[in-house]
Amino acid sequence: MIFVSASVTAIFSAKLSRDPLKSGSYGVGFTINKGVYAELSDSEGVFLNGESISFPTVEFVLRKLNAKGVELRSEVPISCGFGVSGASALATALEIAVRKNIPFFEAADVAHEAEVVNRTGLGDVVTQCFGGVVARLKAGSPSRAVVDRYLFKEKLDFLVMGELPTEDVLKRDMKYINRTGKKYLKEFLRKPSVSNLFDASKKFAIESGLADDDIINVIEAVESHGGKASMIMLGKGVFALNGWEAFKEFKGEKFRADIDFCSYKIL
Amino acid sequence: MIFVSASVTAIFSAKLSRDPLKSGSYGVGFTINKGVYAELSDSEGVFLNGESISFPTVEFVLRKLNAKGVELRSEVPISCGFGVSGASALATALEIAVRKNIPFFEAADVAHEAEVVNRTGLGDVVTQCFGGVVARLKAGSPSRAVVDRYLFKEKLDFLVMGELPTEDVLKRDMKYINRTGKKYLKEFLRKPSVSNLFDASKKFAIESGLADDDIINVIEAVESHGGKASMIMLGKGVFALNGWEAFKEFKGEKFRADIDFCSYKIL
Repeated sequence: MIFVSASVTAIFSAKLSRDPLKSGSYGVGFTINKGVYAELSDSEGVFLNGESISFPTVEFVLRKLNAKGVELRSEVPISCGFGVSGASALATALEIAVRKNIPFFEAADVAHEAEVVNRTGLGDVVTQCFGGVVARLKAGSPSRAVVDRYLFKEKLDFLVMGELPTEDVLKRDMKYINRTGKKYLKEFLRKPSVSNLFDASKKFAIESGLADDDIINVIEAVESHGGKASMIMLGKGVFALNGWEAFKEFKGEKFRADIDFCSYKIL
Repeated sequence: MIFVSASVTAIFSAKLSRDPLKSGSYGVGFTINKGVYAELSDSEGVFLNGESISFPTVEFVLRKLNAKGVELRSEVPISCGFGVSGASALATALEIAVRKNIPFFEAADVAHEAEVVNRTGLGDVVTQCFGGVVARLKAGSPSRAVVDRYLFKEKLDFLVMGELPTEDVLKRDMKYINRTGKKYLKEFLRKPSVSNLFDASKKFAIESGLADDDIINVIEAVESHGGKASMIMLGKGVFALNGWEAFKEFKGEKFRADIDFCSYKIL
């Protein structure tokens, strides 16, 4: 069985190319100590939390790496910006890699390709391949991307108010969002601290227009309680430092998790 | 406090350049679930397992990153091929990085530089930066090296018969060793499996002349018991799969450890 961490994107700038392996995103994200477990199975297709489902991103991985089926279990909500599709694709690819002696990056690139082709994510698999707080400095598949990492060990609070499928956002005119993402990636890199990650990410969320009033309300409530918060990219949700107290005023699923540097495990 | 895994090199080919960051090694190594703990201290200099020592590689890191002193604790023997100098340098650099918000690869490159300048290692820090079974496909510092990883999750046995300081080996005429290392790196990459890692590594150890009769005796004893074994680069010691029974015939320190994919932890 393989575990892959859920990941949250704080800042991004999409880069789409005709070649899925050259597609990806610039930005900053982090992995947490909750995620997705995958185990290959003899039943055809994809099972998620016990139910047979259509999951084209994972089916792509199964097909490309010649496996029949996989059972997935997710500890975090789906389509809410926790990189569940990336974690599912990567965990499935690594499960197959263990059994067939496929090198890590060959398997990881297939998971990334599956995400790009199905428009379910652009940067999660890269973040999940390295772990911790990961800045993606050159966009592309895991074997091509250039990253740096930051040693922020924090306990974070998450509030999930609803879904926001990546696919829908990628259909928008992305030019302005991408320019804004690059601006705030640079602002983070100028002074890479936890505090500045929240500041740069919040400015990006607001300036890009991705954060709606509900999100901004939560961020302001956390700040008025002395915490820090920003928007989960891409989900209708917020991640926060010392946000628990403020979250009580809002409806939605709440949980806590640690930033985790071990983003994949063979169990 | 930071933990960094000990690492064992199975195959290597040294690459020395005038620039320490362009120096390094090609080869294959792996990290284990024992290693070195580092904690910055107010006492000047380096303490290892409770004693004040001269440790130029770590002192280089302290000086370059402006820290006063560090307390180290090693779970594995020193100067025996477990990458203790690399783990000590990297753990010290990451301890400082956490407190000063230094990016991961900037800190890791300093640890690598410290190893190269002091001739204590060429590839350990890179292996320790990525974790698990790591092939170094392009030599250089952590931020410059190109690696792949392999998902071999194994419990290994280690026999340590004596010291073999890296510095002494690097003084030899390295041309033949390096050519042989590249040959067996390629042989491993052709079919990256646990079994082939042992085969390629053993052939490298013998053909390069690095394995002496004592080492070869142990390897043969393990094989006659149905296990697999090769030489720890660079130490007078052996790592083995199912080697415990055969090890009983030999004198030396024996222990078991798992290949570990989480090669650094912030505690």
